[in-house]
Amino acid sequence: MTNTDTIVALATPAGAGAIAVIRLSGDDAIGIASNIFKSISGKILSEQKTHTVHLGHIKDKERIIDEVLATLFKNPYSYTGEDVVEFSCHGSNYIQQEIIQLCLRKGCRMATAGEFTLRAFLHGKMDLSQAEAVADLIASDSEASHQLAIQQMRGGFSSEIKILRQELLDFASLIELELDFSEEDVEFANRDDFQKLISKITLVLKRLIDSFATGNVLKNGIPVAIVGEPNVGKSTLLNALLNEERAIVSDIAGTTRDSIEDEINIGGIAFRFIDTAGIRDTKDIIEGLGIQKTFEKIEQAQVVIYLFDAAPSALQSSLPGVGELSQVLLEIEKIRNRFPQKQLLIIANKVDCLSKEQVSDLTSTHFDSAQHKPLSDPRVQIHLLSAKTGQGVEGLKSTLLNFVNTGALRNNDTIVTNSRHYDSLLKALEEIIKVQEGIDSNLTSDLMAIDIRQALYYFGEITGEITNDDLLGNIFANFCIGK
Amino acid sequence: MTNTDTIVALATPAGAGAIAVIRLSGDDAIGIASNIFKSISGKILSEQKTHTVHLGHIKDKERIIDEVLATLFKNPYSYTGEDVVEFSCHGSNYIQQEIIQLCLRKGCRMATAGEFTLRAFLHGKMDLSQAEAVADLIASDSEASHQLAIQQMRGGFSSEIKILRQELLDFASLIELELDFSEEDVEFANRDDFQKLISKITLVLKRLIDSFATGNVLKNGIPVAIVGEPNVGKSTLLNALLNEERAIVSDIAGTTRDSIEDEINIGGIAFRFIDTAGIRDTKDIIEGLGIQKTFEKIEQAQVVIYLFDAAPSALQSSLPGVGELSQVLLEIEKIRNRFPQKQLLIIANKVDCLSKEQVSDLTSTHFDSAQHKPLSDPRVQIHLLSAKTGQGVEGLKSTLLNFVNTGALRNNDTIVTNSRHYDSLLKALEEIIKVQEGIDSNLTSDLMAIDIRQALYYFGEITGEITNDDLLGNIFANFCIGK
Repeated sequence: MTNTDTIVALATPAGAGAIAVIRLSGDDAIGIASNIFKSISGKILSEQKTHTVHLGHIKDKERIIDEVLATLFKNPYSYTGEDVVEFSCHGSNYIQQEIIQLCLRKGCRMATAGEFTLRAFLHGKMDLSQAEAVADLIASDSEASHQLAIQQMRGGFSSEIKILRQELLDFASLIELELDFSEEDVEFANRDDFQKLISKITLVLKRLIDSFATGNVLKNGIPVAIVGEPNVGKSTLLNALLNEERAIVSDIAGTTRDSIEDEINIGGIAFRFIDTAGIRDTKDIIEGLGIQKTFEKIEQAQVVIYLFDAAPSALQSSLPGVGELSQVLLEIEKIRNRFPQKQLLIIANKVDCLSKEQVSDLTSTHFDSAQHKPLSDPRVQIHLLSAKTGQGVEGLKSTLLNFVNTGALRNNDTIVTNSRHYDSLLKALEEIIKVQEGIDSNLTSDLMAIDIRQALYYFGEITGEITNDDLLGNIFANFCIGK
Repeated sequence: MTNTDTIVALATPAGAGAIAVIRLSGDDAIGIASNIFKSISGKILSEQKTHTVHLGHIKDKERIIDEVLATLFKNPYSYTGEDVVEFSCHGSNYIQQEIIQLCLRKGCRMATAGEFTLRAFLHGKMDLSQAEAVADLIASDSEASHQLAIQQMRGGFSSEIKILRQELLDFASLIELELDFSEEDVEFANRDDFQKLISKITLVLKRLIDSFATGNVLKNGIPVAIVGEPNVGKSTLLNALLNEERAIVSDIAGTTRDSIEDEINIGGIAFRFIDTAGIRDTKDIIEGLGIQKTFEKIEQAQVVIYLFDAAPSALQSSLPGVGELSQVLLEIEKIRNRFPQKQLLIIANKVDCLSKEQVSDLTSTHFDSAQHKPLSDPRVQIHLLSAKTGQGVEGLKSTLLNFVNTGALRNNDTIVTNSRHYDSLLKALEEIIKVQEGIDSNLTSDLMAIDIRQALYYFGEITGEITNDDLLGNIFANFCIGK
C-alpha cells in the first residue's frame, strides 16, 4: 500500500488552550516542515535524529507565525509508520489555522477523518481491531469502557484469532493440496488433528460471541429500570448514589419527560437508570398506558429496582399489618412473573423513619408471611435504605456491581465489544459449524475447502488481513480528523 | 526565587480530540514521571537526554492507563526553566483525568492559572512583558493582534526600556554617590550627558505612549459607526465585505437590538461595525432619542461611514436636483460639525441603479455645488458602491485599511498594546518630566535622586525587574491553567 502524499491536521481538541499540536505525516513531512521551521540553534531539522524535539519559529517567508517545538519521528518509528513531524504551537485558533494553511500551501493535504490511524494500519503498525480500539479509547468515559479499549488496542482477542486463522490456513492448504492428487485418494491433512482444531475454534468463537453481551453493557452502560410510585424517593436515591461517587449525571432527554435517563458511574461501571411510573393496578385507561410503558422499559433493562416507601405513614397501616404493604408485594410478584429472567432488587426506602422493631418486622415477618414466593429466591433481594441519610447506599452499590459480571473484565479475559467483530465472529462460527458437519458426513475435500475458505475470510475481516475500501471507509469515517 | 514543588496540568484545550498533552514542571517532574511511565524499549526515563521523546505506558501499579509519548526537557532547557515532562496521551477526557489524578497522587500539585509562565518569568526565561504577550498570543484572533503579540513576546519595546533603565540607573548611582560627597560639591554625573539621556527617554516614552492608541485598536478592532436610514443597504454592505474576506462574523448582542456589532476581518485587521439609526431631523421625542444614541455611537467610533441610497427613487427627485439629496448633505454637514476629528467616509450605495450620467452628476455636481465645505477636505471621501453587485467593495476595503496606521505594524515599529504598560509609561513620563524640571531649576542632587528612583521604579514595573505578589497575581490570573 502506498500513500505517499503528506497529510496535515490539528491533533488536539479545537478551541483555545495553552498549546495545540499540529501533525504532519507522509513522504514529504520532514521536507515541508524544514521549509517553514527555523530552529533557534540553527540546526537543520531534516538532519536531526528521530524522537528529538527542537525549539524554533514557524515562518512564512519573513513573517514569524509562532515560536514552536517541532518533534521529529522518522519512518518507520512513528505512529503512522511514515515520516512524522509534530508542531507544538501556542493554542490560539488563529495560529493553529495559520500554520495549517501554511502547510497546505507548502504541499500538504488536509487529512481525512482517521487517516493517520488508517495509515498506521496500512503500514502494519497495528491490525484493524487495534485501529478500531483507538477510536473507542478516545471515546471512553468510564473505567470499564476504557479498560476494554486498552485491552483491544494491545492486541486483545485479535492475536488469538490470528493464531487460529493461521492454523486453519495451514489445514486449508493441505486439504487443497489433496485436490491436486484427488485421483490418488491421499490425505495430507491429518483428520484427527483437524477435528481437534475445529473443536478448539468452535469453543473460542462461542466464548467470544458470548462475551459480547457483557462487553456491550460494559461499553455502553448497564440499563437499570427503577419501578416506583411518585414520591417514594427515586430522585433522592439517584442523588445519593451520585454524591457518593462524585460522578457526572447526564440527562438524556427522551421523547417524554418521564423517560429521562440518568447515567451514574459506580465503581468504574456506567449504570443507566431509567425512571418508570410504577405498575399500580388501575382501571384508568391513561394510567393503564403508563403501566404498559413501564413494562416496555423493564424489558430494556438488565436490572430492575423496585423502590417503595417503607415509612408507616406511606404504607397506611402500622407495622405489622397488611394495607398498602400487600399492594407492594402484589406488584413485586407481577414483575417477577412477567420478567422471570431479570435481576430484581427490592428497596425499602426511608427506613430512617422506622423503629428497630419495625425494620425487623419489615425484613423478616411480612415478606415471608405474605402468600408469595419466598424471598430466598436468589433473583430477589431486599435492601433497607435511606436515600436521605445515606444508610444502605454503599450496600446497594456493591449489590449493583455484583449483578455485573465484572470478573471477566478484572481477570483480563477477552471481551468483544465491537458489533462489527461480533458479526464476523457469528459468521465465522456459522462456517465452522458447516465444516464440522462436513467432517461428520465425510464431505469431499473440495467442498470442505470452500467452507474453510469462507471461515478464513471472516477471521481475516476482524484483524484486517482481509479488507476492502468500503470496510475501511466505514471504520475510519467514525474517527475524528487528526487521529 | 525557588518554587520547588512539581505542578501538573492539561496543556491542550479541554474536550475529546486525537491527542492531549499533560505537562509536569518542577524539581520532581522527572522522578514522578519515571514512577508512572514505563518505556516500551525498557529505557529509564530519567537517564535519557533532554529534548527526547519516548514511547511507553502510563501505569498505575499493574493497570495500564494509556500508551503515551513522554517528552523530556531538563532544566534549564525548558519552557519554565525547570525539569519538565510532557505526556502526549490519547485525547479522551477520562484518560486525561486519570493521568492527572495519578500525577497528583504521586506528589504533583495542580497548577494554578498561568503558573508555568510565571515560573518561566521567575527563572528568567522571559521578562514580564514577554510573559504577558503569551496570554495575548493565545487570545489573538486576527493578523494584527497576533503580530503585536509575537512582537512583544520576542522582546518588543521592553528591551528598549531595559537599556534606557540601565543608563538611567547608572546616572542615578553617580548622582547618589555625589550625596556622599555633598560637602565637597563634586559632580560625578556629567550634566550634559544626563540631559541628553533625559531628552532621549522623554522622546521614547512619548512615542510609546502615542503608539498605545494604535495598539489598542489593532488589538481590539477598529470601531466603525455606520450612519444610515433603514433600507439604505447596511446589512448588504456588511455581507459584501464579509463574503469578500470569508471571515467570521460575530454578533455581539448589545443592550438593545439596534446596538448589534459585526466584527469583520479586513486584511488582517478587525473592524467592529456599529449600526446606528441615522440622524434625520425630527420633532418626534422618541426619534430624537434615537439621534442622541447615534451621536453616542459615533463618539465611540474611530471611523464614521455615512451610507445613503443613491437610487433616484430613494432620493425622490431625478438627478440633478435637490429634494432628498440636500437632506443627505445636511446630515453629513451635521456629523462633520459635531465630530471634526473623526474619519468620515461617505458611501453612495445602489449605484448599479444609476446611469453613467447620473453617477457622474452624483460625484461631481451636487456635492460640490451644495453650500457646504468642499469635498476636498481630506477627512471626507465619497465612495460609489453597489453592495448588491460588489462594485466598489474592494475600494472601500483599501480605504478602510488606509485609515488605520498599519505602517507602524508592517514596519515592526514598537507598539504598546497593554494598558498596564501604558499606565507605567505615563507614570514614568510624569517622573521624567519632574527630573527635567529639576535639571532646569538646578535642583539639588538629593531631591533629583528621588524623582529618578521613582521613574526607575515604573520602568522596572514594565519589564518585571520590580514586581510584587499582587502585581504578578493580577497578571497571571488572566492566563488559562496549563500555560
